[in-house]
This record gives sequence, structure tokens and C-alpha cells, in this order.
Amino acid sequence: MLIEFIDKGVCAPKGFKASGVHCGIRKNKTKKDLSLIVSDVLCNAAAIYTQNKVKAAPVTVTQEHLKNGKARAIICNSGNANTCTENGKEIAETTCELVAEELSISSDDIIVCSTGVIGVPLSIDPFMKGIPKLVKKLSYEGSINAAAGIMTTDTVKKEFAVALNIGGKECRIGAIAKGSGMIHPNMATMLCFITTDVAITSEMLQKALSNDNLDTFNQLSIDGDTSTNDTVAIMANGLAGNDIIDCEGEDYDNFCKALNMLTTAVVRALAKDGEGASKMLECTVSGAPDKNTARIVSKAIISSNLFKAAMFGKDANWGRALCAIGYSDAEFDVSNIDLVLSSARGSIKVCEGSSNYDFNEDNAVKILSEDEIKIQVFLNQGDAHATAWGCDLTYSYVKINGNYRS
Amino acid sequence: MLIEFIDKGVCAPKGFKASGVHCGIRKNKTKKDLSLIVSDVLCNAAAIYTQNKVKAAPVTVTQEHLKNGKARAIICNSGNANTCTENGKEIAETTCELVAEELSISSDDIIVCSTGVIGVPLSIDPFMKGIPKLVKKLSYEGSINAAAGIMTTDTVKKEFAVALNIGGKECRIGAIAKGSGMIHPNMATMLCFITTDVAITSEMLQKALSNDNLDTFNQLSIDGDTSTNDTVAIMANGLAGNDIIDCEGEDYDNFCKALNMLTTAVVRALAKDGEGASKMLECTVSGAPDKNTARIVSKAIISSNLFKAAMFGKDANWGRALCAIGYSDAEFDVSNIDLVLSSARGSIKVCEGSSNYDFNEDNAVKILSEDEIKIQVFLNQGDAHATAWGCDLTYSYVKINGNYRS
Repeated sequence: MLIEFIDKGVCAPKGFKASGVHCGIRKNKTKKDLSLIVSDVLCNAAAIYTQNKVKAAPVTVTQEHLKNGKARAIICNSGNANTCTENGKEIAETTCELVAEELSISSDDIIVCSTGVIGVPLSIDPFMKGIPKLVKKLSYEGSINAAAGIMTTDTVKKEFAVALNIGGKECRIGAIAKGSGMIHPNMATMLCFITTDVAITSEMLQKALSNDNLDTFNQLSIDGDTSTNDTVAIMANGLAGNDIIDCEGEDYDNFCKALNMLTTAVVRALAKDGEGASKMLECTVSGAPDKNTARIVSKAIISSNLFKAAMFGKDANWGRALCAIGYSDAEFDVSNIDLVLSSARGSIKVCEGSSNYDFNEDNAVKILSEDEIKIQVFLNQGDAHATAWGCDLTYSYVKINGNYRS
Repeated sequence: MLIEFIDKGVCAPKGFKASGVHCGIRKNKTKKDLSLIVSDVLCNAAAIYTQNKVKAAPVTVTQEHLKNGKARAIICNSGNANTCTENGKEIAETTCELVAEELSISSDDIIVCSTGVIGVPLSIDPFMKGIPKLVKKLSYEGSINAAAGIMTTDTVKKEFAVALNIGGKECRIGAIAKGSGMIHPNMATMLCFITTDVAITSEMLQKALSNDNLDTFNQLSIDGDTSTNDTVAIMANGLAGNDIIDCEGEDYDNFCKALNMLTTAVVRALAKDGEGASKMLECTVSGAPDKNTARIVSKAIISSNLFKAAMFGKDANWGRALCAIGYSDAEFDVSNIDLVLSSARGSIKVCEGSSNYDFNEDNAVKILSEDEIKIQVFLNQGDAHATAWGCDLTYSYVKINGNYRS
């Protein structure tokens, strides 16, 4: 089946409008801080959430609203996480009511999210002022504005969409997302809002999203810090007119394949724009005894501060990858590991049989000078493989996070 | 009981000589790279090791040699970790044989350690050249030279000693240690060599060391990377002449208390000299439902890259501490947490009942400008408490580790 990348992000699927405005949560008036995505009709919906015990108030409100598997809109602010705030739940609920009133829909059908600083008091005033403006600006071309309104330390907007064919009907899945620090499994990570015009039940939607997450969002780490606000939500309005997907089979498989192409693109973009990142790291572990081991090992490598700093320094210090493999939380044989580093400038083997492989240092530096580095690890003891994504650790990461609140 | 800090490190206890020389493993001739500690008589000995699956060759050799709980000497090189090296085990064994020959002791009674770059081939030549010199230089004043010979990116030598009284006999415990990166539980961390003239069985020595480790070395994290070479070894030669400690009781308790005073000083020194550190962080969690939860939570905070970067930036961003508390791997109530930041400049409450506490930002910056920061967390749900140590995340950490091998 052909799956193609297309434009227009969350507005690529039929019947989805979006908008983004500055409402005053941020002091800087040129930075949008409030976004809305609305479907023309009621959607089946599913979501995955942070597993942090300290949860943002909107996370608990959204969990409540999605109990019936239905949603029509997503509202999200940036500039304040609405976490560890005394009146947080009230603010999140009132936000939903304000949106519901403006759109004449039920407030239970609204997904609400926040992102920004933790523990800073939040007022309802900017929402009261901003939501009518936000609803007025809703447009079938508005995805890029919604993508802008959810950004925090992101340096680029993240919107993607794919087109696929299900039972002869052309369908679309679109997404916007934001990073870019405090990103680490488990379980979802950061914020990603996905829309689709595919007809699919809430149950199958949840299943597709939860399975996909294991190999995409859950395999991304920027800094080892699991956020308090992570949410990935998906709304399916069925306007593509395909026969509803209500069980496993070819249609479901095709939907999952397209979803995975989309979310992998999102995850790569998030890794590339990780806080302070100068390089994206993509680590694939092959020859693992089982899938879970491959996931754990690949994640350990891209999470290692020492390995990340070495990549920043273009230093092929593969011993740090071996060290991370060794302390990863899985049981397997570490005696016969090979390691290859690659980029657009070529590939170089640096370790064979868990020992030094005589490589050309100048060539290694050349390869590591690129901004996308692939780390291939061969455990040589099975058939399972997995990939994880991250970024290097740079001066800029320290700079950004030494002074985040100002 | 009075326990006092005294001078002379591992040579403070009766009957221990030490030395450190440059033997050529490092290119820089002014940097010592080989150290030796020798007891005049055979010792009872115990050790704890890294739990990394990728282990340095000397770790496995030492485990073998300590099976009978006896040792007489510790040999350690810096500049090369002897990890992921083809001939690593042979090198470690030959090193012991060379030392044994020079000292006319059994090679089975030698503890061998290495620290430095992983995966770089190591030759026996510098050991052959250096060991006779090292033995010739052995002296009852040599602790400081041994401390110098095991340093890697450490900026200061670490040697400590304490004096205590057991059953009317004056006794001593001394230590040298090295950090300063790739430090994270579990289980021991980095290298620390401890000597004592207390008479104590190997079994009680192991018990004391393993228990103490839970609240000292195991509560230290510099960068979340568990090293491949971590070893803490202790040798007790009994020359203080006390009645041998062979069971629990007052003497054992006093020994444990003194050991803890010593190892806490070592851990604080290691945290303070963490790679690139500008501040030491000491986090105490109180009011926890149980000890293990207190340990896990305190460790999560001092391990968080985001919190560490905020401390570097003198930013009282307590939300990041709450976030780390939330993702720490233990089950407890996160709804009523208080947080206080302190230094030599004073104390400031920044969070009460898991919500913002209105604090003076200027005062917070003043307090966080010191080089020792205490973070006190009150979980308000029990009586258990624990402390963990770490350091801030700085530009220098990235600089050091972007270019470690050169």
C-alpha cells in the first residue's frame, strides 16, 4: 500500500479546523500561547498519558472526558504547565466550559492540555479573553497556527500528515507536536495531537495508538526527565467514508502502518529539535534475544549523558555505548557486540566482538560531523530489533535549562 | 563515642604503606598513573562492585582473588579502564603476578583495579616498568601519592581518615577515592580503597561495607552513567589489637559509625568534584513511608538533568524537583510535599502542599549562589528519611565529555 506524506498537518484530514492565538499567558506578544483543533462532527478518540505520579491538572480532566471514547475538540495552552497549581483543576474545567460555550458543544467532549513552567499560578483571565478570538480564527488551513501555539523551547513548528487508502477510500492522518525538553518515557512523551478522517472505533483507535507508542514516542529521550504533562491524543471523525474499522484485519493494519509512518516522522522531528541539540541520534539495536531487550538497550544508549556529550564532541568514544548497554535493565550476553557509526558521510565500524576494532579516527570525526548520526548495535544473539531516538548533550542544553523560567 | 577526622588517608591505620608513580599508561609524564597500597600483614578483606553487565577485566580478577576474604595489597592504574580489551584478563592477572613477585606475597592476595578510557588496547609494558619503581617508593607517608595515581578527571585528591576507639584500643580507618564522571548507582560507584587496623572478620567487614554502601556510595550520582569499573574495597589488618569483631554488638556498631563518617566524607568530596561541577547538591527526603522510598526519591532529584541545570543557573525551579519526585520509581502520595532550599546564605521555602509557596526570588538567587546547596523534601506521610548527593550540570561537563579521549 502506498502511504504518502502530504501538507496541512492536523487539517489534512477532512473536517478538521484549527487555530492558534496569543492570549496573554506568555508575556511576549509575538508568541502564540493558545491552540484549538475542532472536528466538524463528533469523533471517536483515544489517548496515552504521562506515567509521572505528579500529573498536570488538565491530564486528569482529559482522562475523565475521554472515558466514553468521544471527543470533538482539543484546547492547549503553552507558557504554563498548570501542574502543582492550587486551582489547576478548576482552571482546566473552566477552559473546557468556555470552549464548549463558544462552539455550542458539550464540555465533556473536549481534550484539554497545558505545557510550560511547573508550579506557577495560572489565571483564567487570558483564557476568557483568548478563547472567543481562537474560535473566530478557526480555519481548515489553521494547522500551522495551532502548531505554533503549543511550542515551548521548540525552535521549529512540527506538523506532519500522511495520505493512505482504506477499502478504496482516500484517508488522511495529521499531527502537530511539541517538544523539546523534559522528554523521556515512560509512557507517552510531550504533546502530540493527531487527527484522522478514518472511520474507526474508539477501542481500535486506542489499541493502534498504544501499540504504536511502544516503538515511537516511548523510544524517544531528550534528557531522561519524564514530563508531568505528556499526552498524545487522537481524534477520528470518520468523514473519509470507509467501512468502520472495528476489528483487526487488513484495514486496521494499513491504518497502523500509516500511523507509524506519521508518528515516526514526529518523533524524529522532536529528537532533532531536542533542547540545545546539534545532532539527532538514531540508535538501532539488532540481533537481540527479544523485542523488549532491543528497545531497552537502544534507549539506554541514546539516554546516556556521557555518550550524548561524546557525540556533541564528534568523539567516537564507543566504550560509553558499551557501558550503557552494560547497565541497561535487561539480561543478555554482552560478550560479542559489534558497533557501527553512520551518517550522510559514510559508515565506520568501531567495535567488534565487544573489543576495539582498529578504525580511522579522522574518518570517524568526518562521519560524526553531520547532524544526523546513526548508531547500529549488533548483539549477535537473536532476531529482534528496535530503534530509539535522541540528541546530543550540548552547552546550549545547559544554557536553556539554567535559566528556563525567565 | 568520639570519632575524629585525622590525616594520612590510607596510611593512617597502622601497618599500611602506599605509593604512586607515573609508569607510562598516560602520555603526560607529570600525571601519576599507577598506585599501590600494601599492608605489613595479611588482611581480612571485602568489596562491592559495579552491577554493570559490561565489567572491566580487573573486576572479575579481583572477585576471584577475594573469594577467600583475604588480601594484602591493592594495585590500581588510571588512564585506561582495561574494559572491552581483548587481552584484559591476562593483563590484570600479570599485573598481580608482577606485584606479588616484587613483594614476595601470593598473587591471589592482590586486589587489582583500573580506571580510564574504555576499549583502548592496553599493554603490559608500563606495568613491567612501573611496578618495581612503585614498590621501591612504598612508604607509611605515601597515601597522597596513591591518591594522585588513581585520579582521572578529578581536580582534587581525595583522602580521608578517622580515628575511633574500640574496646579501649585506638583504631583508624582511612580511604582514598577517585570520581568523577560515569557515576551512578547501582551498586558501588567509582573507586574507593579503604584500609583499617581494626581486627574484624571478612564476613563482618563485608556486612558493614554492604550496609554502609546503601546510604553512601549508592546514593551518589554525577551523571546517571553506571561505570564498568566501580569497586570499593576494604582491607583490615587487625594491628590495632582490639578483640576481633566477629558478630554484631557495640564494637561492630562503633566500627560502622566510623566507617559511615568516613564514606560520607568521601561521597561528599566526590559529589563536589563531579565532572564540571560548580555546586554540590545534597538532597534529604524526610517524612517518607519507608527508607527505600526516601532513598529513591532523593536520588531521582539529584539525578535529574533539568533540576541540575536549574541549580547551575541559580534558578529555584522547584517544579523540576516535583517532576523528578513524580517519576521516581516508588509508590507514595505526591499531594502534600514541601520543599526547602538552603545554603550558607540561608534557607527558603519554595513549595508547600505540592503547590507554589510565595517566595522572594532575589533571596532564592542569593542562596543558590553558594557552592553547597541543600534540598530538603518533606513528603509528610511517614518517618523514614534518606540523603543523596550529586552536582549541577554545567557547560564544563559537556566540554570535558565532548572530548574525553584526547
